[in-house]
Amino acid sequence: MSADGKISTKERVQVRISGEEDFRRVDELKCTADAIMVGVGTILADDPSLTVKAKGYPNPVRVVVDSLARTPPDAEILNKGEGKRIILVSENAPLERINALSENAEIVIVGTERVDLRAGLIELKRQGLNRLMVEGGGTLNWSLLKEGLVDEIYTFIGNLVIGGKNAPTLVDGDGFSKDDRFMPLELIDLERVGDGVLLRWRAEKV
Amino acid sequence: MSADGKISTKERVQVRISGEEDFRRVDELKCTADAIMVGVGTILADDPSLTVKAKGYPNPVRVVVDSLARTPPDAEILNKGEGKRIILVSENAPLERINALSENAEIVIVGTERVDLRAGLIELKRQGLNRLMVEGGGTLNWSLLKEGLVDEIYTFIGNLVIGGKNAPTLVDGDGFSKDDRFMPLELIDLERVGDGVLLRWRAEKV
Repeated sequence: MSADGKISTKERVQVRISGEEDFRRVDELKCTADAIMVGVGTILADDPSLTVKAKGYPNPVRVVVDSLARTPPDAEILNKGEGKRIILVSENAPLERINALSENAEIVIVGTERVDLRAGLIELKRQGLNRLMVEGGGTLNWSLLKEGLVDEIYTFIGNLVIGGKNAPTLVDGDGFSKDDRFMPLELIDLERVGDGVLLRWRAEKV
Repeated sequence: MSADGKISTKERVQVRISGEEDFRRVDELKCTADAIMVGVGTILADDPSLTVKAKGYPNPVRVVVDSLARTPPDAEILNKGEGKRIILVSENAPLERINALSENAEIVIVGTERVDLRAGLIELKRQGLNRLMVEGGGTLNWSLLKEGLVDEIYTFIGNLVIGGKNAPTLVDGDGFSKDDRFMPLELIDLERVGDGVLLRWRAEKV
């Protein structure tokens, strides 16, 4: 995120927040994950492939949280690189879109109106996927945090300000309310990486 | 700010983000400032006095950026503690409100529709106020950054997540657009303070 907590501009245009050193770190982290997950908003805004860039390492299973099956069938994540893809959808997803996506991905239906994340993670676990890395966006981050499904948060803070009350942030969604208990974290580590800072937090279980 | 860049909840309710150690640090910093500045939104939401808590140190001159002179005459900042107050208003501010506020503060009219921050800072400088500390909120932070009027940014990052796409962030306002040059920073220092992290950035002059 930027020094002010933003992950893109108000137009949801991707910004280069980190440098080569941080890209390598994220790539290495990806290699240690059994699966990597993003929300459909990130697919629609950035169209990432989520492949591992280092040679000789297999891609983790790529997972999209996509209540209405809006992932475009020609999305990079479905077409670039080897490896399994899983799309978590809800019962609300139109059958024709599910059918179009099922050519390149396993479709898992969990939840009625929206994806039931807890049920989705249980299904991933059943498939032997124990270590899950989530790359956002802010809406998925919020949903996972709210459900208490996060163990650790790694944030790289880049040397720029993006600003904007409507720019996407690390954790969006509804947010905690004044009467809620805020999600407490424990700082595990801080270090300078490139021109920015990497913070590692452990989420305390509520 | 919280680990996700928020400075209060979506209801603008103040949250305890830092601990005693950081409060002391901010108080010491305040002692080194000639003047301390906040936006009227922060006055209306939090009603801070902005006094120095350490015994034996004078309060810096307290400055409110308040285009329409909305600061309540019974606000803490106008009534608690010794020391001069300055309210920067625009020509748009109603005369009766200016009159009510002028009992406890010097009123400086700069700008037509909104406060002209550059002109306001020139007036502070003319009064011998060289070192200015700004305590937010996000709208004032944005306006100062956009105008290139910031030298350094200190952010304490607390060990909690607040979340929320409508929660105030460190830098709100319009935000930079995809075609703008983002505000580049240089990381001066990082250190663990209490349960969080203190980052010091220098704003590169554009």
